[in-house]
Amino acid sequence: MAEYKAPLRDMQFLLKDVFEADKLWARLPGVADVVDPDTADAILEEAAKIANEVLAPLNREADEQGSKWEDGKVTPPEGFAEAYQTYIEGGWNGLGGNPEFGGMGMPKTLVGQFEEMIQGSCMSFGLAPMLTAGSCLSINAHASQELKEKYLPNMYSGVWSGAMDLTEPHSGTDLGIIRTKAEPNGDGSFNITGTKIFITWGEHDMAENIIHLVLAKLPDAPKGPKGISLFLVPKFLVNDDGSLGERNDFSCGSIEKKMGIKGSATCVMNYDGAKGWLVGEENQGLACMFTMMNYERLAVGIQGIGAAEASYQSAVEYARDRLQSRSPKGAQSPDKVADPIIVHPDVRRMLLTMKAYTEAGRAFSTYTSTWLDRAKFTEDADEKKLADAMVALLTPVAKAFLSDKALESAIAGQQVFGGHGFIREWGQEQHVRDIRITQIYEGANGIQALDLMGRKIAMNGGSIYKLFSDEMKAFAAENEGDAAMAEFIEPLKTAIENLDGLTAHVLEAAQSDVHEIGSASVEYLHVFGLTAYAYMWAKMVKVSQAKIAEGDTSGFYDSKVSTARFYFKRLLPTYEGLTSSVKNGAEVLFELDEDKFVF
Amino acid sequence: MAEYKAPLRDMQFLLKDVFEADKLWARLPGVADVVDPDTADAILEEAAKIANEVLAPLNREADEQGSKWEDGKVTPPEGFAEAYQTYIEGGWNGLGGNPEFGGMGMPKTLVGQFEEMIQGSCMSFGLAPMLTAGSCLSINAHASQELKEKYLPNMYSGVWSGAMDLTEPHSGTDLGIIRTKAEPNGDGSFNITGTKIFITWGEHDMAENIIHLVLAKLPDAPKGPKGISLFLVPKFLVNDDGSLGERNDFSCGSIEKKMGIKGSATCVMNYDGAKGWLVGEENQGLACMFTMMNYERLAVGIQGIGAAEASYQSAVEYARDRLQSRSPKGAQSPDKVADPIIVHPDVRRMLLTMKAYTEAGRAFSTYTSTWLDRAKFTEDADEKKLADAMVALLTPVAKAFLSDKALESAIAGQQVFGGHGFIREWGQEQHVRDIRITQIYEGANGIQALDLMGRKIAMNGGSIYKLFSDEMKAFAAENEGDAAMAEFIEPLKTAIENLDGLTAHVLEAAQSDVHEIGSASVEYLHVFGLTAYAYMWAKMVKVSQAKIAEGDTSGFYDSKVSTARFYFKRLLPTYEGLTSSVKNGAEVLFELDEDKFVF
Repeated sequence: MAEYKAPLRDMQFLLKDVFEADKLWARLPGVADVVDPDTADAILEEAAKIANEVLAPLNREADEQGSKWEDGKVTPPEGFAEAYQTYIEGGWNGLGGNPEFGGMGMPKTLVGQFEEMIQGSCMSFGLAPMLTAGSCLSINAHASQELKEKYLPNMYSGVWSGAMDLTEPHSGTDLGIIRTKAEPNGDGSFNITGTKIFITWGEHDMAENIIHLVLAKLPDAPKGPKGISLFLVPKFLVNDDGSLGERNDFSCGSIEKKMGIKGSATCVMNYDGAKGWLVGEENQGLACMFTMMNYERLAVGIQGIGAAEASYQSAVEYARDRLQSRSPKGAQSPDKVADPIIVHPDVRRMLLTMKAYTEAGRAFSTYTSTWLDRAKFTEDADEKKLADAMVALLTPVAKAFLSDKALESAIAGQQVFGGHGFIREWGQEQHVRDIRITQIYEGANGIQALDLMGRKIAMNGGSIYKLFSDEMKAFAAENEGDAAMAEFIEPLKTAIENLDGLTAHVLEAAQSDVHEIGSASVEYLHVFGLTAYAYMWAKMVKVSQAKIAEGDTSGFYDSKVSTARFYFKRLLPTYEGLTSSVKNGAEVLFELDEDKFVF
Repeated sequence: MAEYKAPLRDMQFLLKDVFEADKLWARLPGVADVVDPDTADAILEEAAKIANEVLAPLNREADEQGSKWEDGKVTPPEGFAEAYQTYIEGGWNGLGGNPEFGGMGMPKTLVGQFEEMIQGSCMSFGLAPMLTAGSCLSINAHASQELKEKYLPNMYSGVWSGAMDLTEPHSGTDLGIIRTKAEPNGDGSFNITGTKIFITWGEHDMAENIIHLVLAKLPDAPKGPKGISLFLVPKFLVNDDGSLGERNDFSCGSIEKKMGIKGSATCVMNYDGAKGWLVGEENQGLACMFTMMNYERLAVGIQGIGAAEASYQSAVEYARDRLQSRSPKGAQSPDKVADPIIVHPDVRRMLLTMKAYTEAGRAFSTYTSTWLDRAKFTEDADEKKLADAMVALLTPVAKAFLSDKALESAIAGQQVFGGHGFIREWGQEQHVRDIRITQIYEGANGIQALDLMGRKIAMNGGSIYKLFSDEMKAFAAENEGDAAMAEFIEPLKTAIENLDGLTAHVLEAAQSDVHEIGSASVEYLHVFGLTAYAYMWAKMVKVSQAKIAEGDTSGFYDSKVSTARFYFKRLLPTYEGLTSSVKNGAEVLFELDEDKFVF
């Protein structure tokens, strides 16, 4: 198993060369004060040390041990508690947090790279700070000043962690039907009663307190999604002086046995009249949750590419070391018993597929982060409006396409190992099992696709889509005259045209059959993602060619150009069949009666 | 978790309606004596009872327990030993075996259906009889009459089981470099020394003896694959009177911790001068192994669809039961809190994808079995030649495409369950983990693709391919005038033309660059598979339409037509992008230097 190395070089390439984050940071109010390129470099280098040296060594054994539940207590795998201390002592927990309450205020463009390292080195561990950061986002955006002052500093420091309690046994995607109740105590607090499931790190002993954000229904709340409120429910009540008081009335009833991310505890939480405080307005709970959704969903996509990168690094090392058969062109290592398998075309195809998808995914998440930063920090109303729209459009793609392609990559990374890929000690099968959850949680990928096609595209007649399409076209037009770019710009233009056409087709078809949206959505999202990755690769090639022209001989930029060429020639064309499939419509989905699926 | 039900109805449809197995059996010498349609029905119905009632209930818990190793002994999961007794007492172990030595001599067309039930209900268990059947095939084809008489009867009865020892730590795909040695004792026996890994059910206590077929090198054997011999090495030596003698000098050093098929033991076998007997000629070991390869490889594809069927049945049940959100067309179950998720277009897309691939896979494996039966039983030299060629061509597709699509199906079947799909108790994630091995063992799917494109197509200039293409074209031509078939025949013709063109393209491109074979192979195999499945669906529609015209109102045949329509509209088009990718060639795979994959 190769040792994980955070892909620092590639992250710096994206931040500096491709997206010129320094310029973005310098002009965004609030960001310029906290980060400059040197600080960013230092942060990423330090973070890489934590990822490579503290977290990555825990990953394999954590999968074997899992978190343990006994009598309501959860014990994380060996080494997690110590790693958590190291992590919070390094100040990492509040990297993107609000400086007013002790956060570091770093932009997502930087934080996203950091998250990839943490998740890529040990996803089970990374979920703890990820859920805390998500909870903090909601509290910071919606809670009262009093709650913020009481809770955020200890959450940003990591002394306390956070958890998000949405799902119930009968209610996952459809949160409108939750049953957990919140009854007012008359003193500003509420009594929370109900059962929540799938609560990541809902219980553990790494932090002194765990702050749960719980969706529940007030008495007489309207039915459905408009009757849900959000409550802050701490494991230990917090006294006015900030010290911890009595244990709140809820407990962890069990943890799930899962396919992957076994080191993390996925908890059943039982609330028996636990004390909680309202976050945001009554019945606005879903909106309060959605505040952090774009960040969390992007973070899930980033988890996927983080683990796919780890799988890729191992696969490359194995493909260079493993000797098996000869190249079709004759022995390449005649002194050895066989050639390293990296000489075989299909092994190269698998490795390049992983490289092309993972690096494009990293670029796309960084690109999406630039829009999150612009939306959060700009003081220009027009820019804010544009950025909000772009974030809304790009987020479901970043969540679903990154995670789908991450699974595809990890499966390839396992296949490179042959039989050894199926054996746990080699680590490759764990990446497959871990990545699989990223397609499911934070809104299953089918739901992301519906969000994209239905809400983000159809509901505004494609006007937001057009912003993105126009941006891609402008890039293509700018580079029209660049002969060295022609091999990339031509197929990019064709892909954009195809996506434009497909978007128009679905919008039109949906006029007469609303099922066309859901029928098209998943394959549409893939065509969108493939096109967006082509745009990312074209952007990466553009700056790489400039670097090569400037005399760079590291090979890094040539590697980008070669990988882009592979992407355009061998992966991008898969949109063709998907496009045909979408255009063939919804009707065939509804011929079969529900009772005629199995005989 | 739905209870697994062997898909008897569909198997009978394939045997009776689509492939008219009764006619085939009636005309094949040897087959007509042992099976007729009534016998076949009775066999499948009894087998379904074993699968549904004995094996399926073991599957989930076997995954949790795994096989256990201690001090060289392997203990299977609870219930396996009893199930094995039930299984062999039913006489199932020798279903396809040579009647001369106690086998039942059933044709593969029937045995394949049986295998699907066993593998679909519990793959970990099913591997034991599968490896025994494979070993028997090699012994029956190549061993001396003495060895056959001594070993086959007890293996067909299941009192003894079989195992196949090919792989070594440094030698998997490339068997030419194995190190295990065989030294003649001068009395006709050999001393076997070496280490074998990945030996499925190499050790266990369910059978009284375990007969290993071991690849090893004789002293002064030629280097490479032409210097490998095959040896029969029993766990307990067998006395002349058939009783068991002393324990042979080999042992199980450990078993692997795996991603899936955890109930089965995957053994490291250490041979320390174990006594063995040559099977077949010296240095012809690989050829002897390849005798059973076509059967085993098809069986692996069948394992995939067996488990995919189990995943599908659970997914359909869940999609009918799980209430979540409303149909885009408004409430379909207004009396319930939400609609069953089967109303949502994307859930239907996932279910239909599973159904379309799994049923086409079952058809394709049955079709391939008809060729195996013709090759094995015919006395007509021309038919034998044709059938051997077809088996050679179809087998790598059956192994790789069935297993690839089985994984895709099981991932969809898991996705239907949302978060619950990730939880072990629901069973869906186990199918993903179990199926994953079918893409890897018995020759990784990349190797199958190379076998197809290189050996089966390129080496004879496409002449065998043409046999299959011509058969498909003849079917299309026969149905040209059938208006009800037009919607299937037209796209089938286009797909065949595309495959013809792609085949010619690769053959041509390989003239100037041998890497074009390996570069094209995996995607080519998928285009081949998609086209072959279109042919299967068209054949199934043809007979279904006839049954509907005859007045059948069960809905079974309508379900076939609807599923075919879905396949042609929504899945078949994916060949378009794959075709483009293949045509874009090998060059982009070799731009990147081996040391430039990771920076």
